[in-house]
Amino acid sequence: MTLLMNSTEQLTTLGAALRQELGGEFADRRADAQARFPIENLHRDPDQDLATARQWVLDRLVEVGRSGALAAGVPTSAADPGDVTDTVIAFELMAHGDLSATIKSGVQLGLFGGAVANLGTSWHHDTYLADIASLKLLGCYGMTEIGHGSDVFELETTITYIPETDEFEVHSQTEGATKAYIGNAAEHGHLAVVFGQLHVRGRNYGVHAILVPIRNDAGQVEPGVIIGDQGAKGGLLGIDNGTLRFERVRVPRRMLLDRYGGVDEHGVYSSPLASPSKRFFAILSTLVRGRVCVAAAGGIAARRGLSIATRYALQRRQFAAPGHPDGVLLADYAIHQRRLLPLIARAYAYGFAQNEVMASLATLYHAADADEERRQLETRAAGIKAMTTRFANDALQECREACGGAGYLAENRLVQLRADADVFATFEGDNTVLLQQVAKALLGDYARIWGELKTVDMVQATARVFGDSVLERTSASAVVERLMAAARRQPEHTTLVDRGWQALLFTERERHSLESLARRARKAGKSFDQLNQLGDHLLFVARAHLERITLEAFIAAIENCTDEQAKPVLEDLCSLYALSSIHADRAWFIEHGKISTTRSKAIGAEVGALCAQLRPDALALVEGFGIPASWLGAAFLD
Amino acid sequence: MTLLMNSTEQLTTLGAALRQELGGEFADRRADAQARFPIENLHRDPDQDLATARQWVLDRLVEVGRSGALAAGVPTSAADPGDVTDTVIAFELMAHGDLSATIKSGVQLGLFGGAVANLGTSWHHDTYLADIASLKLLGCYGMTEIGHGSDVFELETTITYIPETDEFEVHSQTEGATKAYIGNAAEHGHLAVVFGQLHVRGRNYGVHAILVPIRNDAGQVEPGVIIGDQGAKGGLLGIDNGTLRFERVRVPRRMLLDRYGGVDEHGVYSSPLASPSKRFFAILSTLVRGRVCVAAAGGIAARRGLSIATRYALQRRQFAAPGHPDGVLLADYAIHQRRLLPLIARAYAYGFAQNEVMASLATLYHAADADEERRQLETRAAGIKAMTTRFANDALQECREACGGAGYLAENRLVQLRADADVFATFEGDNTVLLQQVAKALLGDYARIWGELKTVDMVQATARVFGDSVLERTSASAVVERLMAAARRQPEHTTLVDRGWQALLFTERERHSLESLARRARKAGKSFDQLNQLGDHLLFVARAHLERITLEAFIAAIENCTDEQAKPVLEDLCSLYALSSIHADRAWFIEHGKISTTRSKAIGAEVGALCAQLRPDALALVEGFGIPASWLGAAFLD
Repeated sequence: MTLLMNSTEQLTTLGAALRQELGGEFADRRADAQARFPIENLHRDPDQDLATARQWVLDRLVEVGRSGALAAGVPTSAADPGDVTDTVIAFELMAHGDLSATIKSGVQLGLFGGAVANLGTSWHHDTYLADIASLKLLGCYGMTEIGHGSDVFELETTITYIPETDEFEVHSQTEGATKAYIGNAAEHGHLAVVFGQLHVRGRNYGVHAILVPIRNDAGQVEPGVIIGDQGAKGGLLGIDNGTLRFERVRVPRRMLLDRYGGVDEHGVYSSPLASPSKRFFAILSTLVRGRVCVAAAGGIAARRGLSIATRYALQRRQFAAPGHPDGVLLADYAIHQRRLLPLIARAYAYGFAQNEVMASLATLYHAADADEERRQLETRAAGIKAMTTRFANDALQECREACGGAGYLAENRLVQLRADADVFATFEGDNTVLLQQVAKALLGDYARIWGELKTVDMVQATARVFGDSVLERTSASAVVERLMAAARRQPEHTTLVDRGWQALLFTERERHSLESLARRARKAGKSFDQLNQLGDHLLFVARAHLERITLEAFIAAIENCTDEQAKPVLEDLCSLYALSSIHADRAWFIEHGKISTTRSKAIGAEVGALCAQLRPDALALVEGFGIPASWLGAAFLD
Repeated sequence: MTLLMNSTEQLTTLGAALRQELGGEFADRRADAQARFPIENLHRDPDQDLATARQWVLDRLVEVGRSGALAAGVPTSAADPGDVTDTVIAFELMAHGDLSATIKSGVQLGLFGGAVANLGTSWHHDTYLADIASLKLLGCYGMTEIGHGSDVFELETTITYIPETDEFEVHSQTEGATKAYIGNAAEHGHLAVVFGQLHVRGRNYGVHAILVPIRNDAGQVEPGVIIGDQGAKGGLLGIDNGTLRFERVRVPRRMLLDRYGGVDEHGVYSSPLASPSKRFFAILSTLVRGRVCVAAAGGIAARRGLSIATRYALQRRQFAAPGHPDGVLLADYAIHQRRLLPLIARAYAYGFAQNEVMASLATLYHAADADEERRQLETRAAGIKAMTTRFANDALQECREACGGAGYLAENRLVQLRADADVFATFEGDNTVLLQQVAKALLGDYARIWGELKTVDMVQATARVFGDSVLERTSASAVVERLMAAARRQPEHTTLVDRGWQALLFTERERHSLESLARRARKAGKSFDQLNQLGDHLLFVARAHLERITLEAFIAAIENCTDEQAKPVLEDLCSLYALSSIHADRAWFIEHGKISTTRSKAIGAEVGALCAQLRPDALALVEGFGIPASWLGAAFLD
């Protein structure tokens, strides 16, 4: 089979430079991988029915697998731990094409394969990893239950050790214990990683994972396994999601993925982690790569949509006007600029934030003794996943509408992108739940630092010093601190595009809202009714935190930029991102005395001015996203 | 064929009372029509492929047609003008089921049939209306062209009178003249209403409409007609949208729909309307009913989604908490209440606004000599269409996400609703364009009243008096004026739920933003660059206007409510709607000195308090939407 590879692409020099900057430290690896990626069947025919779509996606997976592009970085044995950066880059590339194929690759290699690699031990690795990487063995990741989507701690499936036969019995105790939304379950999966409560000799050791064959080599469903097909969905038509129930299914003892806890030949449970909650979080920590990948795919989906809508706006004219006898280009309407350009700026911002998460992931993935850093990474990955996927949905919808009726035609790709990316807000952690986790983690940090400060007799510390120290710093800390120091002297007298002032406002938004949340949380104690009232405040704090992290990533990227043409454009994009964020929350800033009403009004005008300023570079901006025009597959751009 | 009819429904007394109030003056007619509506095939199987979906929708249309529910109010001859209220109610009922079938009924009876009825004269009526109403003759409404979606004035299709043969020649001059997104074109339509520039003896009389056969009785495409199939879309899979091109197709002279302009047997053009622009707007005015219907369908779609998500939130538990050992009901989480309840309040608000538009439509539809009122109705219908369909999309997406993974399964109906309703933001007038039209109409009123005031030497009038008089009043004017007068004395000392204060803020938002827009527009003159900068301001003014109109409709509904149980609930819903709107724009209110920052902060808390207060009535609130639980068709509610 010959595969069509990425052909030579015409780019503006600015577009090429921006692409390099957005690629960051991974730019060359991304470009190399992209040059080798098979693009012959990048997009699925939107007319396909369910059965055809599922088969097409499986075939596409195999095709990409054969090219070698899929298994990049995937561990194939105990001796080969894989390179997590390669796997994220491979996932990004998949997201340039059909998102069903992308997510199916994630189910197979990231979730199913990742669980075997990270929760299993050498027998599991030697027995399964090679076949998982080569797609010879397709599998499922059986975590979510109908009764328990977000609350994994309460899973009802039981994994009970049977001493008489030295086996485990996997059982769906209740209706709510049915595994649901499981990719590869309805048709293609043969082996499932099943999460459940591990019971050994009458004692519950909490959530563990075990391998359960669900189909035999002939594709027949194994006895005791009941599989349901969840049929059509809002998108991702090519993924065979299904339900799994287990009626006292027995598997040999060795099938338990026992890295964090297992049962020996004497039927005795032991774990390297003494605390049940540590065990639980160690088992869940395997989700971090998945969240980084979903954020990556969300980011790419948004970039694809913005590339399509921007290129369309640069060719489509509507309504004649003085000086525009053939009609005004959509891209020349101020309101159209205001629809697309702040989204483009935000896509850059999240791209830089994502690069930092990827760098942390690479550092920490196989690191020992980095519990604290790993916990921070988990929080950040969860938060960036929530922000990026929310953004992807909103941006894709805006793009769809900005292309009018043409945007609604499947042949222009936007609607399928939107439908597929929709569920990114829900799977791999519901965004609302993830953001609350982020805020709770920040509250925990806050309480800890508060405690430490007290211990070292720092009660005298001013609220300001205290406030700043509690904010988790990023790689750009020193730069940001320097910029802010200058702005802090006379915040209302800086220009609106002063980076220090912007950073100061982002920092103040987080610090102030976190401090007031901490006060309210202390007062609420353990009262559900009072904690319940904090929900919106938690979400605000989480967003404020993630916006700051994102801005600082942008600032670091500008600091690292040496390209003279790209740098001023990145400066404008960064201001557009920052001011759009401040503008959206300007009521909060005024209410809390951070900006005057005069300045607040000026921000809206500045956002418009930045849009107009960036308009001539619109094409280069979307070229910078790294998607060759020929990959977009939108009929109206032909 | 036996049809399954609406069965008896269990309702809370509050739910029944709210339904009566939301039904307003049309409550009984709606209930009667609903009781007779055939519900056997209300929902389409989401697994259907394109071909099956199109056939199913056609069959469904015929089925509803046979029941008599579809043709209610549709004119069947010159002697029977039809009852427009009945047609809107029939359309609402259709929207309780598959939206493809709904929109296809709109294409057939509203657009195609409506054009024949309203733009044609007796020969057209006698020849076609009965067959259109009975679905014997399926047709298209060929207005939009690929090159001209929003800019109908610039259509490029030509309709040229040929004196030699006393015929018209219909021709697609350019690639951009291709008719696009035309429902019934790809498969089912036989006759098309085609809009184009009418040329008679070398002179262009502007846009007119003509009937062109596109398929013969055997279903074969007529010579000279070229039809394209636009295939899969983001939703509305059951509608056969296509493109139409005409290669110098000849039709007899009588095929011109000549109510507003025609050619006599001597080949001479004449029109009852002297001014070409009056003619143009008369021809476009047939769009008003379509916009009322799309707003209706958007409103119903949002209610369906909110009914599904609310009922799910009342049965779904997640995460145990003190006092909630089996998990907390989603509906009991404050953030979940905050997601759904303001949307429910807004759904009521738009329901009342829609009732007022329907009442105007009924009054004016066949009225002679009511140009000014009709123009106002057109503006309002356009605006309410834009607001309601935007709301429907946002609400349905929120509902989808609020139901998590279950919300993504097609069997729970939310995703298809969302996908189908998506394009409501675009068709029957792009929302962005419609809102700008609303703002421009308000500017026109403003200028006119400004002019009149000057004429009668009222230059002394204070800005306040002037400002108020420029705001188009609603049926609730007197009540609203009385409420506002009390609040105006000490606006900051009223409670937040004071209706007069809320109305005052809505009024001030509109007045102030309209006045400043008028100043800027005067300054901009005819400069495209300067007018271009007003885009966002236009949208703000339009929304402010429509929000006020909507609030006043809500106030009038409360004023008319005599049910003791329903009235206080409506009061809370109205406050929730009003305060949510003020809260969303609170930055603007602070910036313009309309509220203090203290009060602004309090509004957010009050929104939360109102949500908590309405929570116990959640079921009754969605019962009030008028959708029997058995009609929702969501698997997880079974």
